[in-house]
Amino acid sequence: MATTTDRSPLVACPAPQAVRFAVVRCLTEALAAPLSDADATIQSMADASPAKWHLAHTTWFFETFVLRDHLEGYRLFDETWPFLFNSYYEAEGPRHARPQRGMLSRPSLDEVLAYRAHVDAHVELLLDRPELAALIELGLNHEQQHQELMLTDVKHALSLNPLAPAYAPLLERGASPVAPMEWQSQEGGRYRIGHEGGRRPGGFAFDNESPAHDVLLEPFALARRLVTNREWAEFIADGGYRNPALWLSDGWAWINAEGIAAPLYWRGEAAFTLSGLQPIRPEAPVTHVSFYEADAFATWAGHRLPTEFEWEVAAASHDPAGGAQLDEAVGIHPQGSPGLFGDCWQWTRSAYLPYPRFRPAAGAVGEYNGKFMSGQCVLKGASCATPRGHSRATYRNFFPPEKRWQFTGVRLAKDL
Amino acid sequence: MATTTDRSPLVACPAPQAVRFAVVRCLTEALAAPLSDADATIQSMADASPAKWHLAHTTWFFETFVLRDHLEGYRLFDETWPFLFNSYYEAEGPRHARPQRGMLSRPSLDEVLAYRAHVDAHVELLLDRPELAALIELGLNHEQQHQELMLTDVKHALSLNPLAPAYAPLLERGASPVAPMEWQSQEGGRYRIGHEGGRRPGGFAFDNESPAHDVLLEPFALARRLVTNREWAEFIADGGYRNPALWLSDGWAWINAEGIAAPLYWRGEAAFTLSGLQPIRPEAPVTHVSFYEADAFATWAGHRLPTEFEWEVAAASHDPAGGAQLDEAVGIHPQGSPGLFGDCWQWTRSAYLPYPRFRPAAGAVGEYNGKFMSGQCVLKGASCATPRGHSRATYRNFFPPEKRWQFTGVRLAKDL
Amino acid sequence: MATTTDRSPLVACPAPQAVRFAVVRCLTEALAAPLSDADATIQSMADASPAKWHLAHTTWFFETFVLRDHLEGYRLFDETWPFLFNSYYEAEGPRHARPQRGMLSRPSLDEVLAYRAHVDAHVELLLDRPELAALIELGLNHEQQHQELMLTDVKHALSLNPLAPAYAPLLERGASPVAPMEWQSQEGGRYRIGHEGGRRPGGFAFDNESPAHDVLLEPFALARRLVTNREWAEFIADGGYRNPALWLSDGWAWINAEGIAAPLYWRGEAAFTLSGLQPIRPEAPVTHVSFYEADAFATWAGHRLPTEFEWEVAAASHDPAGGAQLDEAVGIHPQGSPGLFGDCWQWTRSAYLPYPRFRPAAGAVGEYNGKFMSGQCVLKGASCATPRGHSRATYRNFFPPEKRWQFTGVRLAKDL
Amino acid sequence: MATTTDRSPLVACPAPQAVRFAVVRCLTEALAAPLSDADATIQSMADASPAKWHLAHTTWFFETFVLRDHLEGYRLFDETWPFLFNSYYEAEGPRHARPQRGMLSRPSLDEVLAYRAHVDAHVELLLDRPELAALIELGLNHEQQHQELMLTDVKHALSLNPLAPAYAPLLERGASPVAPMEWQSQEGGRYRIGHEGGRRPGGFAFDNESPAHDVLLEPFALARRLVTNREWAEFIADGGYRNPALWLSDGWAWINAEGIAAPLYWRGEAAFTLSGLQPIRPEAPVTHVSFYEADAFATWAGHRLPTEFEWEVAAASHDPAGGAQLDEAVGIHPQGSPGLFGDCWQWTRSAYLPYPRFRPAAGAVGEYNGKFMSGQCVLKGASCATPRGHSRATYRNFFPPEKRWQFTGVRLAKDL
Repeated sequence: MATTTDRSPLVACPAPQAVRFAVVRCLTEALAAPLSDADATIQSMADASPAKWHLAHTTWFFETFVLRDHLEGYRLFDETWPFLFNSYYEAEGPRHARPQRGMLSRPSLDEVLAYRAHVDAHVELLLDRPELAALIELGLNHEQQHQELMLTDVKHALSLNPLAPAYAPLLERGASPVAPMEWQSQEGGRYRIGHEGGRRPGGFAFDNESPAHDVLLEPFALARRLVTNREWAEFIADGGYRNPALWLSDGWAWINAEGIAAPLYWRGEAAFTLSGLQPIRPEAPVTHVSFYEADAFATWAGHRLPTEFEWEVAAASHDPAGGAQLDEAVGIHPQGSPGLFGDCWQWTRSAYLPYPRFRPAAGAVGEYNGKFMSGQCVLKGASCATPRGHSRATYRNFFPPEKRWQFTGVRLAKDL
Repeated sequence: MATTTDRSPLVACPAPQAVRFAVVRCLTEALAAPLSDADATIQSMADASPAKWHLAHTTWFFETFVLRDHLEGYRLFDETWPFLFNSYYEAEGPRHARPQRGMLSRPSLDEVLAYRAHVDAHVELLLDRPELAALIELGLNHEQQHQELMLTDVKHALSLNPLAPAYAPLLERGASPVAPMEWQSQEGGRYRIGHEGGRRPGGFAFDNESPAHDVLLEPFALARRLVTNREWAEFIADGGYRNPALWLSDGWAWINAEGIAAPLYWRGEAAFTLSGLQPIRPEAPVTHVSFYEADAFATWAGHRLPTEFEWEVAAASHDPAGGAQLDEAVGIHPQGSPGLFGDCWQWTRSAYLPYPRFRPAAGAVGEYNGKFMSGQCVLKGASCATPRGHSRATYRNFFPPEKRWQFTGVRLAKDL
Repeated sequence: MATTTDRSPLVACPAPQAVRFAVVRCLTEALAAPLSDADATIQSMADASPAKWHLAHTTWFFETFVLRDHLEGYRLFDETWPFLFNSYYEAEGPRHARPQRGMLSRPSLDEVLAYRAHVDAHVELLLDRPELAALIELGLNHEQQHQELMLTDVKHALSLNPLAPAYAPLLERGASPVAPMEWQSQEGGRYRIGHEGGRRPGGFAFDNESPAHDVLLEPFALARRLVTNREWAEFIADGGYRNPALWLSDGWAWINAEGIAAPLYWRGEAAFTLSGLQPIRPEAPVTHVSFYEADAFATWAGHRLPTEFEWEVAAASHDPAGGAQLDEAVGIHPQGSPGLFGDCWQWTRSAYLPYPRFRPAAGAVGEYNGKFMSGQCVLKGASCATPRGHSRATYRNFFPPEKRWQFTGVRLAKDL
Repeated sequence: MATTTDRSPLVACPAPQAVRFAVVRCLTEALAAPLSDADATIQSMADASPAKWHLAHTTWFFETFVLRDHLEGYRLFDETWPFLFNSYYEAEGPRHARPQRGMLSRPSLDEVLAYRAHVDAHVELLLDRPELAALIELGLNHEQQHQELMLTDVKHALSLNPLAPAYAPLLERGASPVAPMEWQSQEGGRYRIGHEGGRRPGGFAFDNESPAHDVLLEPFALARRLVTNREWAEFIADGGYRNPALWLSDGWAWINAEGIAAPLYWRGEAAFTLSGLQPIRPEAPVTHVSFYEADAFATWAGHRLPTEFEWEVAAASHDPAGGAQLDEAVGIHPQGSPGLFGDCWQWTRSAYLPYPRFRPAAGAVGEYNGKFMSGQCVLKGASCATPRGHSRATYRNFFPPEKRWQFTGVRLAKDL
């Protein structure tokens, strides 16, 4: 590990794929470096996976779709492991039940790191093959998604430990003074939505961002900053969690069944963070709220959540690589960034549905996105745990409306 | 009851509100006439309500929002009943837990019918007050929705009785010869969607159908008939319920957790109907399938489900009062109707979301639709259990994607 | 029904079996007389059965084991009903799922009463056949058990109705002045336990009461009266439900999981009874408490529960037909009876286990008791809902330790 | 660890308490030696605890009841740990939820071992204080119980890993040729049951084994060996798991709800063991069966389970330290031992209830046994995972009737 962390995880984009491969793979291991074997093994809920599993699954992706299918004579590192580290690809056969991933005390973290090294060494043999470039780029973007999931899953697991252990030390950054609420207005009309390009290096996008197509929008405005912890505390103090008139019916049932009365990690005046329990900073963006909470807050504030289309149109003038995003395994907290990207993924009121004429790719890779297009909400932007460079205006993140273990926050919108 | 059933439940629309009030209220009771006190009391699942509860709840709606709020000196029929018969209006205070509705052996069916007569007599005093017309019209449309729910809830309850009792005798109609699959093509472009008018008698629409607004559509085609039982049997025979590649992820999890392998009421070669067990008619439209099943079938067939917007645009040339819809308490089965309306509600791939600039009405009535705008799918059309005259092209029915105790079916769509 | 209720449900014991058959069968119907078809149809939980089901099941017992097996040429009243009305006799084939009994709106109460009349008429043809006497006596004792269950199941169902309807009017009896707590002492030694006789008319006992055998007891004393509501209120006021030191581990988990803090039907100062909500009478025996609560109370009081053997030995000097027991469908409340029988079934600390050399009978009837000999506690005595004449000192009632919808109470014991 | 494993875990009994303390504490760590930090952290079900937790909890017992209460000036190793490592002592305050024990990736295994060393060093200061001898002896017996639990919990956790990892290598011992089924007869009469002594070193017993008292037994016979895998396979082949007549009602419901059709760890022709997957040895005792299965088997075989009293009386002529019991962390499998002790704990048909005049000890230690006296069955003997020297004829082990992750087996009995 010592040699790999000497490389900087921050790279300029675009880059030759070999460099990019090394950098992305290295960051994953750097993020896992603070974890013990035990930390990397436990699973806190069915939604989350052990860090060790993330390390192995992203490697399984390259081993299966790149090495097994394209490197002549390649032999699997271990024939019993694909059963363990396939996530949800039905076309790849049966697999270990997701809620049982926390039972994998073996293989050990060291064995999984050896697996990574083995697969990396073989993939490097293929990095100059242009016909594999798109597939490898998909693997790298897939790995970046798991980098973020690994951090949020680790955070959730550590939060259940009464000792509230820290994943990494707190990096003190000057607190951004919070701006008064201002709005970015947008004219109504016909706008182009979605990614034009398909899957080529340098212009990567997931299949769910295509086909590009036009939509009609009414005039609207988007808040220039995220909702803050201070504002959320006002919502609570005003009885926001006790007033059914503010809530979607499913959300009201959910907060009552689960006894929800604050963001996920709030503990009185403090909040559990990746640096352990820390005082809640009033001016920082609120995070770890569900879609239901975001929607109720917006109703309380007299506004609403944006649609994914409004957000994407407004994002045209913002830098996707700006704001608080992930560069290394420290200081992973929302900061209060000036643009639309960074700090928190932002709930939209758009359901996660296929774009017109969308067709999933053939084969196992086609299971990547399309089959999840029911029951979920689109989130836009990027969070402090999103690897910088991974997101873009057309990016469509998605989670069910009650989930809140991701760094999820709220940006308000209103009709003009 | 004898005198009320002398009135014909079939009326021409529009009609003076007094006549309309009498006709709608009468049909509800006519639909309940085949039920014993016990039939009307039982509740088969949390989603369903006893018939007696439907009879009382629709009456509570008039008593609360019309009589209590607008008839001076009105005294409640029974002060303890609003707690029992409020459905979900949080603004109206606490209420009986929904899954416990089946415990209400008292009040008896006769007492509930007396409640109806009492409230009817008082509402009739207000039928000439123009400022109440919209509210009363809302109550009547609300009651029509419960007429359909009462039938589907009764069907579900009777289906759990091993004796498979019939609600009403089978009305033999000549079997419609099924047409070969043909398509109605539609050009792409900008279309007007939604209801222009608001809530006035003669032009009633629910708040969720507004505001009217424009959308962009790509060229598409809609099937001229619904998917049939014969086609569904082919889907089953081809392993449709065992092939994960056809299913949304949530749907695949659902059929496996619940052991789903056929439409809800299929029992081998027969199906449970409101006339007891009857042979499955191959040429009739399949019904009682979930959104997940509808979507998997469409994928299997090489097509897709329509969006709610496509369906609404295509419906412009169809008669909303045509096809197999509800006229009386017999013969409630899908028949194979020629237009877009009737037989079955049709799943769309559209999530049930607010239209641009939608705002719920103020007060308890504002809870009617808006708070359900998450986690549900839009259905269009009308079913054999929808009171004729109740539906229209802009109508937005909605249910969660796994529900199938309504008369729900499938109309295919495809890109052009 | 009118003619049958003219007969007195109170009979002297012993009596010729024909009279006894008529009287027992009649009392069941008299107990059901206050119920509507809907009252008799609903099922409030999986443990309980609808009244209609009790009426039919007790009849099925005679139809199956007496008529079908012993009356030549007998044809079943309805061939589809045994599937509905078999309770748990695996040897009699598949049967309707217990939690679905509340879905049987058909057959109606009238049809079930016709079934009873039909079966009664045929059984009467066999009442002079000595070889069937034991079987019929078993059927009558079985029916008496269901009389009590029917009352407690009806009570539970009505208790879930927010209107708190009454099953029968309150019969005011002079309140028994409660005696100060006195004790009946018993010497230690070797005692005979269990029923000597087997299954002959006049000396009926269930198989679980045999074989008779000796046990050794230490000296002990049994309270001369049951614990009262006043004493229970003191237990509550002293934090009885909040002090883990008083509770068995399973009991503590149960009260916390279920939020238990008082006897089942207590509602503040009142309690739900078969006569609706009534003030709690401080001097009456507490009832509707679980074994866990009974055990915790005894610990709090510095005493303990008796064993079933201690209770049986002490009961030798008491009249099994004395105290508040069931004579007719009114006034079913604990009263404070002087002897060991009546008012409430009394929890013992004995697990329900087979006596030495116990063997279940062959055939379906052998499923009567033996297969329930795990996970249950023995209760002794008789309650205000036990048909007078049904119980005896050797009687072993049994229920799981958390159940409390029966009339269950507490008699303390102590070591000497 | 290196130095401690040099000591032999096998000691002669009795021994001075200082030696005994060292030996028992050492064996626990020797048993944990094959485990990685991750192995020692995971929790496979609410019934089981992580190995790390066992290591810490047994230490917490000494720290709390010995050091905190009796060593002046002692400071807790870590003030936050008692919350984590209290098991169920309500008197010791709130504690970490049992099902969340698997979330404790911190403290690490090394930190827990340091905790053990710290506490050991302080307890050693008190080993010459006679007034503490009984308490320390209780702590050592408590730790021995956790040694067995740690092994069975580790086995269960590893069994859920699809790689079927081994805890320790298989120690091949010559297979004992199985004896034909023979019976040890016992006359009926009055016998002394239970432990006379109380809690003194050299004569230790748990409180639940007292007071000693007399019971009456009928003549009976006990099988001279345990039921074997071969006999169990015959039971399966004969439809044992599909014939309701063999089962207690709760047992039949349990096997159907859980899909049980074989002992817990059987996988076709192999079984999961602490040495990974191994062929099932037909002549070895069957193990990992529940009380329900044991009872059904006995019924199928035409015999029954013994009572705990019969077993104890028959054990008078057997060596409690004989047979396959735990000496070290290898070869932990039932072997087929000649006496009544060893191989498997043996289900009795006795419910786990207090002996006459039983009173729990005062204070937290009084929670040790008494509060579990409901809903459980008594097991007698000792298993291959019971530390040799820990058991005796009066020992009462207890588990709920459906549990089978312990080494539980079947010894038949019959009436004479």
